[in-house]
Amino acid sequence: MIGWKAGDLLDLRDLTKEDIELILETAKSFKEVSTRDIKKVPALRGKTVVMLFSEPSTRTRISFELAAKRLSADTLNVTVSASSLLKGESMLDMAKNIEAMNVDMIVVRHKSAGVPQILAEALGPGIINAGDGCRAHPTQALLDMFTIKEKLGKIEGLNIAIVGDILHSRVARSNIHGLIKMGANVTLCGPTTLIPPDIEQEGVKVTYKLEDVLKISDVLMFLRLQKERQEEKYLSSIREYTKLFGLNKEKLKMAKKNVIIMHPGPVNRGIELSADVADGPQSVILDQVTNGVAVRMAILYLLLGKKELVSDDLKGQGDS
Amino acid sequence: MIGWKAGDLLDLRDLTKEDIELILETAKSFKEVSTRDIKKVPALRGKTVVMLFSEPSTRTRISFELAAKRLSADTLNVTVSASSLLKGESMLDMAKNIEAMNVDMIVVRHKSAGVPQILAEALGPGIINAGDGCRAHPTQALLDMFTIKEKLGKIEGLNIAIVGDILHSRVARSNIHGLIKMGANVTLCGPTTLIPPDIEQEGVKVTYKLEDVLKISDVLMFLRLQKERQEEKYLSSIREYTKLFGLNKEKLKMAKKNVIIMHPGPVNRGIELSADVADGPQSVILDQVTNGVAVRMAILYLLLGKKELVSDDLKGQGDS
Amino acid sequence: MIGWKAGDLLDLRDLTKEDIELILETAKSFKEVSTRDIKKVPALRGKTVVMLFSEPSTRTRISFELAAKRLSADTLNVTVSASSLLKGESMLDMAKNIEAMNVDMIVVRHKSAGVPQILAEALGPGIINAGDGCRAHPTQALLDMFTIKEKLGKIEGLNIAIVGDILHSRVARSNIHGLIKMGANVTLCGPTTLIPPDIEQEGVKVTYKLEDVLKISDVLMFLRLQKERQEEKYLSSIREYTKLFGLNKEKLKMAKKNVIIMHPGPVNRGIELSADVADGPQSVILDQVTNGVAVRMAILYLLLGKKELVSDDLKGQGDS
Repeated sequence: MIGWKAGDLLDLRDLTKEDIELILETAKSFKEVSTRDIKKVPALRGKTVVMLFSEPSTRTRISFELAAKRLSADTLNVTVSASSLLKGESMLDMAKNIEAMNVDMIVVRHKSAGVPQILAEALGPGIINAGDGCRAHPTQALLDMFTIKEKLGKIEGLNIAIVGDILHSRVARSNIHGLIKMGANVTLCGPTTLIPPDIEQEGVKVTYKLEDVLKISDVLMFLRLQKERQEEKYLSSIREYTKLFGLNKEKLKMAKKNVIIMHPGPVNRGIELSADVADGPQSVILDQVTNGVAVRMAILYLLLGKKELVSDDLKGQGDS
Repeated sequence: MIGWKAGDLLDLRDLTKEDIELILETAKSFKEVSTRDIKKVPALRGKTVVMLFSEPSTRTRISFELAAKRLSADTLNVTVSASSLLKGESMLDMAKNIEAMNVDMIVVRHKSAGVPQILAEALGPGIINAGDGCRAHPTQALLDMFTIKEKLGKIEGLNIAIVGDILHSRVARSNIHGLIKMGANVTLCGPTTLIPPDIEQEGVKVTYKLEDVLKISDVLMFLRLQKERQEEKYLSSIREYTKLFGLNKEKLKMAKKNVIIMHPGPVNRGIELSADVADGPQSVILDQVTNGVAVRMAILYLLLGKKELVSDDLKGQGDS
Repeated sequence: MIGWKAGDLLDLRDLTKEDIELILETAKSFKEVSTRDIKKVPALRGKTVVMLFSEPSTRTRISFELAAKRLSADTLNVTVSASSLLKGESMLDMAKNIEAMNVDMIVVRHKSAGVPQILAEALGPGIINAGDGCRAHPTQALLDMFTIKEKLGKIEGLNIAIVGDILHSRVARSNIHGLIKMGANVTLCGPTTLIPPDIEQEGVKVTYKLEDVLKISDVLMFLRLQKERQEEKYLSSIREYTKLFGLNKEKLKMAKKNVIIMHPGPVNRGIELSADVADGPQSVILDQVTNGVAVRMAILYLLLGKKELVSDDLKGQGDS
């Protein structure tokens, strides 16, 4: 068995609304830990968390590493390109070896979709998907939902637009699954070439005009544009993309007064968002980063055997 | 003075049978630590262990890193190719610098034979050889011996075959020294081009036919084949090698019922071992990986000043 | 506000003589910690220190990492070339992200002068400059001053020569600012092409002959020569440079009997210093390395909120 109930976090499709609510609730308590003078609780002392990454991703890696350390777990970094993959060993062989060393959790990032699932099937419990290809990035979607709930008090009933390259975005895919489950009205917006043709089956609306979502949305979530999409003929030009789907101060005037602007980062300033919008009062981009640590603490905590938050686990001072 | 008595682990030739027995016995106690809920003892709190590697070797590096962390030591990774060797500094200069920072133990992996010895001579105590060129890999041989003893109850008197590229294998070399010392009957098996001509002086037998060892061996230890050996003219073809020296389910029928199959990893599946044999019931390959952490905990513990295991050092919960 | 008073260490020009004395005094107490059996105090438990490096620099990185660990802080390494800078994100964006994760201190090394200042202006307190371009390397100068005071009992009134490529040396620049402030008589010595034309305004003397400083100096501080300076036409030849500005046993006879030889490392043996001088009795090069950890412990400790050393912070055994 794999999936959330079995001790893995692979895809938000495996989680119920209640599972998501438990994670968000637990994360709320852990967020406070990172604001303490001594930012550490002993909850996962003596546990080992390995970051097994085949793609460079500093921000996701350090967010998980900090989350694990603030729970007093030991951490290990394994970058696959700099390691024995050079000798032709497969990711699966490497993961089996890591498991044999009595590691408690493997956080996996891989450029190929499905690799975390393969590992979860072959290994015992303890795989977290930190992003696989264009498929899923469940912890990003959870931290996005946490941030929405924190800023707007709820998710249900909100109008949420996801803008940009939906086709290649694991962030979009996971957010769609999560947000729909939580009762939001999700609209996708982007160039026709970058929206999957049958995506409406997931329960979302689609539009090809930013204006359609600007006025009605409570949340505007922009995706990072990979500039190589132009070379791959998905885009006529970056400038054209920005004109149609980028957000600047002028366009923002059309939006709801309390709209929040989200982005998984790193922002291409001047492409998806103008600098003044990215750094402006509506932007919650750095809150997303802050909340990422809390949400990942909650996920590690819940997956490593605690079915609910034990208040004692918020006490104490780290390794004491 | 360098060598085991002086606080270094460079080559199994420096150790007596009693030294090896002490390590294996100590490792047995530490193995249990890695199965606890809190996999940590405070034995090496406040000690610093540096992994100084000039070759990528994820599995050996993380095995040592986990061993050190489970003893509550602090760990530091220094990869020489990614570091100031770029500026022309020698490994020796770097090691002297690390020593000057009051580090307690330097775990060294280098592609040139003899580098750990050079460091041990120039520095104070505290060098562990994690593999140098084709010369020695003592911790691998110790974990192999631990695994043999664990599975078969003893080493003395066993028939043990080492199969493959003996010539270039530090794993073979260290196992020969250790196993002979422990009283095993060791037979080497491989292509004539890959067995050193005068190796029988070490007290081993040599054969060029796998069948000779298949029937009589209690342990079949296969070595990883470097595919570049074909280009270097040591081999006519990989396929030929596998036909003559690879093990598959068919050939395994000839072996003793309780034979164990070992491999230092990573396995070239389909070359040294067929996948069903590598993953089959006779294979103890992942046990080797598990035991590697326990054996390295024992080595770190014994080298850092404890002459025997103090039972108090198995108590407690990590950093407390 | 940025600078030492605000919680950053960017440049020794921001520090008063009293600030420097406080750091050196605090470092003295922390030096003793690294000689203990358990080299750890709990002073910064639950704090997080990130090493954000855009240049490979093993020795500075591990010195800071050890300093942080011996104060029981958690550490994270972020190498910018191996990370999301690949995706075009700026160092500033990365630093803002790291700050958003409630990190307490960012140690920054960057090949461009001014980057630590930019980060300090954009972020809250908590930036340490670990070397920026040719501009400043304040922690190196502080460990150099600590070593001088340790070996010679004082800094004030000493004759100190800095020899080599002053023009491109952040080490020289920071030492000039620190040593002048502490009352030393500083003379710069090197090829005319490698000494900035108006440097005497800083309060130093300049000479182009090594003999001028050999006889009178209490401290001879040699700088590492970048061999590419020859290609850049700053030097006629390396051999010529060594003849004029290198130190060997023969030339050393001209020096004061108690002179100390310093070098920030790694030494180009045979260029700046002959091997027998680099490893000889006058050399304090490895003392500099040892003291680097103590000085960085003091800096982390003082910047993270302790205005003076609390003696309780030297007690205890690490994470307990």
